[in-house]
Amino acid sequence: MSNLEETILSYGKRAKTAARKLARLNARQKNVGLLSMADSILRHEPQILEANAEDVQKALERGLSAAMIDRLTLDPKRVRAMSEGIREVAALEDPVGQVIREWTRPNALNIRKIRVPIGVVGIIYESRPNVTSDAAVLCTKTGNATILRGGSESIRSNLAIAKALSEGASSAGLPEDAILLVPVTDRAAIEHLCKMDQYLDVIVPRGGKGLIETVVSHARMPVIKHYDGICILYMDAKADLKMAEEIVINAKCQRPGVCNAAETVLVHRSILNKFMETTGRALASRGVQLRCDQPSLVEANRIPELNCLAKAATPDDFRTEFLDLILALKVVDSVDEAIEHIETHGSHHSDAIITSDTTAAERFLAEVDSATVYWNASTRFTDGGEFGFGAEIGISTDKLHARGPMALEELTTYKYQLRGTGQVRN
Amino acid sequence: MSNLEETILSYGKRAKTAARKLARLNARQKNVGLLSMADSILRHEPQILEANAEDVQKALERGLSAAMIDRLTLDPKRVRAMSEGIREVAALEDPVGQVIREWTRPNALNIRKIRVPIGVVGIIYESRPNVTSDAAVLCTKTGNATILRGGSESIRSNLAIAKALSEGASSAGLPEDAILLVPVTDRAAIEHLCKMDQYLDVIVPRGGKGLIETVVSHARMPVIKHYDGICILYMDAKADLKMAEEIVINAKCQRPGVCNAAETVLVHRSILNKFMETTGRALASRGVQLRCDQPSLVEANRIPELNCLAKAATPDDFRTEFLDLILALKVVDSVDEAIEHIETHGSHHSDAIITSDTTAAERFLAEVDSATVYWNASTRFTDGGEFGFGAEIGISTDKLHARGPMALEELTTYKYQLRGTGQVRN
Repeated sequence: MSNLEETILSYGKRAKTAARKLARLNARQKNVGLLSMADSILRHEPQILEANAEDVQKALERGLSAAMIDRLTLDPKRVRAMSEGIREVAALEDPVGQVIREWTRPNALNIRKIRVPIGVVGIIYESRPNVTSDAAVLCTKTGNATILRGGSESIRSNLAIAKALSEGASSAGLPEDAILLVPVTDRAAIEHLCKMDQYLDVIVPRGGKGLIETVVSHARMPVIKHYDGICILYMDAKADLKMAEEIVINAKCQRPGVCNAAETVLVHRSILNKFMETTGRALASRGVQLRCDQPSLVEANRIPELNCLAKAATPDDFRTEFLDLILALKVVDSVDEAIEHIETHGSHHSDAIITSDTTAAERFLAEVDSATVYWNASTRFTDGGEFGFGAEIGISTDKLHARGPMALEELTTYKYQLRGTGQVRN
Repeated sequence: MSNLEETILSYGKRAKTAARKLARLNARQKNVGLLSMADSILRHEPQILEANAEDVQKALERGLSAAMIDRLTLDPKRVRAMSEGIREVAALEDPVGQVIREWTRPNALNIRKIRVPIGVVGIIYESRPNVTSDAAVLCTKTGNATILRGGSESIRSNLAIAKALSEGASSAGLPEDAILLVPVTDRAAIEHLCKMDQYLDVIVPRGGKGLIETVVSHARMPVIKHYDGICILYMDAKADLKMAEEIVINAKCQRPGVCNAAETVLVHRSILNKFMETTGRALASRGVQLRCDQPSLVEANRIPELNCLAKAATPDDFRTEFLDLILALKVVDSVDEAIEHIETHGSHHSDAIITSDTTAAERFLAEVDSATVYWNASTRFTDGGEFGFGAEIGISTDKLHARGPMALEELTTYKYQLRGTGQVRN
């Protein structure tokens, strides 16, 4: 066994022990811990900012993009926001202990299905250091121990944040090992985590294709992937054109770099011309590049403002998460064709139909097999906060256990408690 | 790509297409299909029994145990029971389409969390041919396509049953590929199934350690394990001795070969002597062999009837699923020690405390991290039927998605439907 493997195993063992202690705490005890963690983050601001400055310096030397540098950089305002975020989580309702269902059998055996912590949650992520705090805090709130493994570019910031959180937690009586950050950032560390199903109850990868693939191919425990969002909007024959324009602009332009932004728009042939005259022009005014199928390209070329923005789409454009002001455009002849395109090209994240036709809308809502399906609204609402869940680990693109926004409830599982008076089975 | 891999991939593709069709059917349409499948099983009785006779013949030639032969053998009565079982599932409520929760956000966006089929369910099992029907039927009821892979010893029976089910389903308008049985029984088939995450949404292994390990180490999709049950009963200092005796006898002897039977009994030191005088004698009268720790062996040796039945336990005895009239016995000094033993030696399946002490019982119910925890009742109630679920795929020993009895509801997942009036995000 390598030194690294031994280190990771020792983390697993410590986290499992901590998880059993955490599971026995009530909501008040955990909230006291969370508030102490929030204070500790503020107290450690100098150390966190110093560590972050080193990360940023290394990132600049390595020539990371300005967008990456921005995601990585912390300042006093961001540190305060991190601390404030912890206080907000403390104020949320604790799902642990909730009775999901209770019934009594004819033999008088009482059955309760209750929410319990999952145990030890592994979170593997890249880039933004505030994920360290967000993820650890949501796990603590739900009585789970966390093993975090962040990316190399933010390792110093992550270590400083995790240290602050741990100190805050343990000074308030929470187990010291409730939050553990793996100090090793090479890929072998992920592989060892993935093998450790005796300690790790679930693993949540948030990141790019390579990271997700490493986890999926090695994990022995359940994986809840936070993968790409190829979100698709379908403009039906009966779409309100004004609403269509507002929703397309919002879903594409309001924040193009996130997973619930739209990447493809499907347009019913009967409204193509009017759609291009309205939404097409609006997209042009925002500088959105269009990747068009043949019929939509012909229409686009009639609009001078779109001339230098529209070009022919390749098949790959309809399977790409652009995360940028680029939109793929395709003409369809029916709601069936739209559903078929979404099922075969989308990522089952968030898809929308814009229409005043109730029958078409209900078919779309029923038949599109995505985590969230919309009728007459922007896909940008797929978000724990927007759903009213308060905070989220992310958006699961998996189907089981957690689908869509993964918040406090999705960080719990259940068990059955049966209370009897000596019942035996016949 | 090997021929086998191509075959398995073609099954996956066909099942995925069938799953989309199945998901669009309402409860009535699926029930018509189920009743037709029940009829078809009766109509195919001669072919099923003929195929089964060949399986039994081969099993006899291979020298399988009498218990295995019994599990394998079908007769007209068992075929009728299989058909009757399908009718019972048809009569159950369909969870698909149920609204789990509905709420409206301040911006008037309406959110519904509704139950939907999982998609394509892979079930890998051994031995009993009636699992072919049970599993396929529960999946059909919940709108899932199934890919079944049974063991080699029952392959002819399984093929005949699957053919009968498929014909019944398709003659009633259900997709022909809703139920597919892999005709190849070598382990490579399992490995190919495990890789096929583009088609298979979940895989459920039911069987021995080797089978489960193959699936866990190869699967790219979620796995819901149906693994062993090392169920533990704790006789507290305040246990009612009469109740203790009835529950121990029931949990150990009523059907020792099943996963919810007890394998270990922990006895509080203060009642050891009385427990041995009552339950000990009762176990002896049933011929149950005892594997005792040092203090319990001393007590056992004082009872003549136990002389030839009790012997010193090895450490392994406390981690063994005997599935036989063998019971491990250990003395503990507190409820804490009992919980600690269960957490480290049990399989987190079903564990019970027998006591009249409410405080001890509630601590046990809260702190034992098992799928089902009991107070004053036999662990034998961990069963979909006994829970009132009507039928079950099995008992999940996993923590996520399905924990404990896995029935119709656990064969569904959820999605969010959002209905708006043009909402965009600020």
